[in-house]
Amino acid sequence: MSERYFQHTFPNGLTLVCEKMPGMQSAAMTLLVPAGGANDPPDYCGAATVLGELVLRGAGPRDSRQLTEYLDRLGLQRSSGVGVHHTRFACAAVAARVIEAMDAYADIVQRPHLPEAGFLAARDLALQALAGIDDEPRSKVFIKLREWHWPSPFGRNAMGQKDDLQKLTLELCRADFATRYHARDSIIALAGNIDFQQVKDAVQRVFGSWNGRAPQPLKVLPPPGNYHFEQTSSEQTHIGIAYRSVPETHPDYYTARMAVECLSGGMSGRLFTELREKRGLCYSVGASYSSLKGYGSVMGYAGTTNERAQATLDCFVAELYRLSEGVSQQELDRAKIGLKASIIMSGESTSARAGAIAHDYFIRGRIRTLDEISAAIDSIRVEQVNEYLKNNRPGPFTIVIVGPRELKLPT
Amino acid sequence: MSERYFQHTFPNGLTLVCEKMPGMQSAAMTLLVPAGGANDPPDYCGAATVLGELVLRGAGPRDSRQLTEYLDRLGLQRSSGVGVHHTRFACAAVAARVIEAMDAYADIVQRPHLPEAGFLAARDLALQALAGIDDEPRSKVFIKLREWHWPSPFGRNAMGQKDDLQKLTLELCRADFATRYHARDSIIALAGNIDFQQVKDAVQRVFGSWNGRAPQPLKVLPPPGNYHFEQTSSEQTHIGIAYRSVPETHPDYYTARMAVECLSGGMSGRLFTELREKRGLCYSVGASYSSLKGYGSVMGYAGTTNERAQATLDCFVAELYRLSEGVSQQELDRAKIGLKASIIMSGESTSARAGAIAHDYFIRGRIRTLDEISAAIDSIRVEQVNEYLKNNRPGPFTIVIVGPRELKLPT
Repeated sequence: MSERYFQHTFPNGLTLVCEKMPGMQSAAMTLLVPAGGANDPPDYCGAATVLGELVLRGAGPRDSRQLTEYLDRLGLQRSSGVGVHHTRFACAAVAARVIEAMDAYADIVQRPHLPEAGFLAARDLALQALAGIDDEPRSKVFIKLREWHWPSPFGRNAMGQKDDLQKLTLELCRADFATRYHARDSIIALAGNIDFQQVKDAVQRVFGSWNGRAPQPLKVLPPPGNYHFEQTSSEQTHIGIAYRSVPETHPDYYTARMAVECLSGGMSGRLFTELREKRGLCYSVGASYSSLKGYGSVMGYAGTTNERAQATLDCFVAELYRLSEGVSQQELDRAKIGLKASIIMSGESTSARAGAIAHDYFIRGRIRTLDEISAAIDSIRVEQVNEYLKNNRPGPFTIVIVGPRELKLPT
Repeated sequence: MSERYFQHTFPNGLTLVCEKMPGMQSAAMTLLVPAGGANDPPDYCGAATVLGELVLRGAGPRDSRQLTEYLDRLGLQRSSGVGVHHTRFACAAVAARVIEAMDAYADIVQRPHLPEAGFLAARDLALQALAGIDDEPRSKVFIKLREWHWPSPFGRNAMGQKDDLQKLTLELCRADFATRYHARDSIIALAGNIDFQQVKDAVQRVFGSWNGRAPQPLKVLPPPGNYHFEQTSSEQTHIGIAYRSVPETHPDYYTARMAVECLSGGMSGRLFTELREKRGLCYSVGASYSSLKGYGSVMGYAGTTNERAQATLDCFVAELYRLSEGVSQQELDRAKIGLKASIIMSGESTSARAGAIAHDYFIRGRIRTLDEISAAIDSIRVEQVNEYLKNNRPGPFTIVIVGPRELKLPT
């Protein structure tokens, strides 16, 4: 492929993607297993979240405590979580330690103990995390926005539903593990101070005998609606707005991204300038491109006082409509510079790159090089952006309000 | 000093600290100006926060809009904020652009326009940010913990007080700017793909004529108390616990840090293991070392359901007391590995290093090299840690509860 990138799919369906980053001592790994919120069993929303916690509680030759201590002794900074399509296990450390840890991660996804005590604790933590969202209205806005904007089951809350979590059993978790933790459609990404052949050999050795199955196709339904109000007693109102955009694989993708960047990139983006700087309507405001496989959208947020909530919503929507009148050459130039700068910065983070190449492979079936992304951004002309915006007027909107009072919606 | 580090204090009192990071394309800058929450005028808590926003609204030859667009056109990722001792302006980008931007930052701290319209907007945003904390109980715990644990005025909330912000005027801001934005005790740090001589020349050129004044000494008073309860109607209780530790310049500093790392480092730290993994008491729990100049403390947090709040507090305090019985060689080994791994990772982030060397200079008057920190960690023996823990039993505690009901405090 090139000296910097490497991609290989093993016979069992597992794909390895790599990026060599000169000058780095560290490496980062991202392992995506096809157990996401969208493919949770229909009546067990949150199953992947409980399972993602449970598999860490002992695997292969190590019990729960031994596994945690082993990974800590390697000096791994690690995280895990469940998204729409996958459960993600990520770690970063001095490069040699990440390669060493692969063996334990292979145990985690292939030979977890799934113990009874661990199950009760894992389910309990999932219930607690879900309850904690009541104290995080901003997170709640995004959860509800995905639920009401994305086609079902993609918008399901991967954290789960209380009733579903309560009726989940260890037996169901074990069956779920057997169904959804498999090599086919799993992706392992490594970035940093690595040697392709060494990584490929290590992956072959520890993941080579992982079984491969064909996943069940999902039945996709339209989202439940386009407006949701969640009453809370607070001095603050939190507003979420989403509308559809092109998917990442669409020829207009970079054009659409540049438009969003003009709307909300840097500190001279329109939303920040108009709502925060000029009108002082809200402390926090922004919008960004958000992506599922084959589906793109723009999701925005504003948090403000109850008194200014209606003006904030009106002004936010007005800025979205104004976008279809076009952007200036200066706005586009700044947007390009901002996006390219953030690409250069991410090129210095092994964790960011491991996550990015795993995502690229999932969405596109291949890695985009940093040069390819930069060139694609450079190639966009202002006429293209304005033609796109004229033909793709933002809307219809999905709107979520979390606050004490409903707001009047734009017509 | 060495090929990697550089330090220079200019005649006006401004200090430049630099770290050259091979393999990086980017550079990051951190500029610390001695206007912090602790030295806000006594009746104008939040003044530095309003000023920190106001100075960005036009400076030197550029008005507010021109300044924002100029910095965005350089592709700078930037942030600013007010801490205990300083207002911090930070940016990162391709290295040459950061050097180019220094000129605009020199305008910001020396020649801001401080316009009337900008003042009203800046004060309003500060009031909104303050009101927004009501929806972020976790942030509120830490604000209250600092207020009740640290000696006054170090614990004052840099975000301000509502009454104080409301009576703040543009004239007061202008006077405050003249008093607190000065070269003496300001620190400028650059890290990344830089040339020492070029940076030194650039700083001399744009900051060389900045005036230097002697800051007013602060009158330090004991903290207001050791227990604070803030009632909220929620299903969740948020618990904060703080106790005193040694300052960063103390010979026992690394020993104390290793003890905190055993308490709450990685995923095998005691708090995570006992409260979350074994007993399932809370989803989120942790503690970390927190530092003022000449003053160190350990600050912990746990968020849980109301039903488990008392058990969580009891268990948290029990773990703190148990620490004084000592840690094992294995725990110390893991703690060392974890801390050293995080140092290596931060060595790959220009922003992290710029922030770290600025902090080092402020606390110690010199930069610690990454090798020095690693060697200091390696040198700590388990007998030292246990001797320290025996002689420095955690406590007395400052405890903050944000939730619907008061809890029974440890005796």
